[in-house]
Amino acid sequence: MRISELSARSGVAIPTIKYYLREGMLHQGEQTAATRAEYDDSHLRRLRLIRALLEVGRLPVAAIKTVIAAVEDETLPMHHMLGIAHYALGPVVEPEQDEEWRTARAEVDHLLGELGWTVAEDAPTRDELAQTLVRMRQLGLHVDLAPYVEAVGKLVTEVEMDTIPFDGPRDAAVEALVLGTVLYGKAFDTLRRMAQESESARRLGPR
Amino acid sequence: MRISELSARSGVAIPTIKYYLREGMLHQGEQTAATRAEYDDSHLRRLRLIRALLEVGRLPVAAIKTVIAAVEDETLPMHHMLGIAHYALGPVVEPEQDEEWRTARAEVDHLLGELGWTVAEDAPTRDELAQTLVRMRQLGLHVDLAPYVEAVGKLVTEVEMDTIPFDGPRDAAVEALVLGTVLYGKAFDTLRRMAQESESARRLGPR
Repeated sequence: MRISELSARSGVAIPTIKYYLREGMLHQGEQTAATRAEYDDSHLRRLRLIRALLEVGRLPVAAIKTVIAAVEDETLPMHHMLGIAHYALGPVVEPEQDEEWRTARAEVDHLLGELGWTVAEDAPTRDELAQTLVRMRQLGLHVDLAPYVEAVGKLVTEVEMDTIPFDGPRDAAVEALVLGTVLYGKAFDTLRRMAQESESARRLGPR
Repeated sequence: MRISELSARSGVAIPTIKYYLREGMLHQGEQTAATRAEYDDSHLRRLRLIRALLEVGRLPVAAIKTVIAAVEDETLPMHHMLGIAHYALGPVVEPEQDEEWRTARAEVDHLLGELGWTVAEDAPTRDELAQTLVRMRQLGLHVDLAPYVEAVGKLVTEVEMDTIPFDGPRDAAVEALVLGTVLYGKAFDTLRRMAQESESARRLGPR
C-alpha cells in the first residue's frame, strides 16, 4: 500500500509516519520509484504498537525507541523483549537507601522467594513494592499482602497471560502486553472502587 | 498541647498548620491566652487526614476542602461522607457522548445490575469504566471483565472494608479509606506486574 493508505488504515497522519521513518521507529517501505514506497502489514502492526505505547502506555518517545529496538533485535529472546516493554510501563523508582527501606526490600525478596515467582533480581517492581511497604508502615497501616497475592496470582496465571500471542509477530505480542497491562489494570482499579462503594453501602445502609 | 508540640507530633511545620487554620481546614484550638491556644488529639487526627489526602491521595487543596467539609457535616451519613472522599480520589472523566460510549455505559449499568452492586447512578466510576471499555474495543481487545469482577469482589468484601474503622471518629474512617484505596491499589498493581513477569518466564523460559 502507499503511505496515504497506510495513514488511513492506521489512523496516523502522514507527517507523523514520516517522522517515525526518520527516527527509525518505523522500518522503511520498499522503494518502488524515486518518490514512492510500498508499505505492508508489518508497517501497520508497528504503527499500532507505537500508538499503544504512546497513547495507552503514555511512554516518552525515548522509551518507545528502547522498546522498538528490543522488538527489532531478533537475537533477544521473547521473554527478555517483553520484560523491556514491561519495565518501561512502570514508574521510575528511586530507592531511598535507609534502614527502613532495606528491611522492606528484604521482605519483598523473601516474599517472592516463598511464592516461587521468577522475578529478576534487578526488576524495578521489587523496589516499587518495597517503597509502597515503607509508605504504608510510616502511615501506620497494618500490612497484609497475602489476599492480594492470591487474587493477582490467579488472575494473571489463568486469564491475562492467555491473551498474549506469544507465537505471533514480536510487535503484536508487545502490543498485547501493553494494552493488557495498562487497560485491564485501569478496569480493575475502577471495579475495585465500585466494589468498595457497594460494600460500604451494604454495611452502612445505602443512601 | 501547644502548636509547637502539635507540629512535632504531626510532622507538619508550624506555618503550614497556621495556613490550615486560616483556611478552615483545621478547627481552631482552645484559646487559653491572647496569643496561645491548646490543641488536642482531634487536631492531630485532622492533620493526619490532610496529609493522607495531600501526599497519598494527591488531591488538590480545593478537593481536600470539599472532603473536610463532608467530614465536619455531622448530619451527613457516614456512607455519603466516605463517598465524597472516594469520588475525589478517582480521575475526572469527561464522557464522550457518542453512540459507542452510550453503548458501553449501558453495559456498565447492566453489569452492576446483574452483580447487584449498590453503586450510585451518578458515580463517576460508571463513566470511567465505560470509557475504558470504549478504549479497549477501539484497540481491538477482546474484553472479558468476569474474572476481574470475581477477584475484586472477594478482595473488597472479605478484606479491604474490614480495615476501615466505621465506628470511630469520622476523619479516621476517611483517612483509612484513602490510605487503603491508594496504597493497596498501588501494591496490587505492582504485584500484578511481578506475577506477569513470573508467568512470562514460566511460559517462555526464564533468563
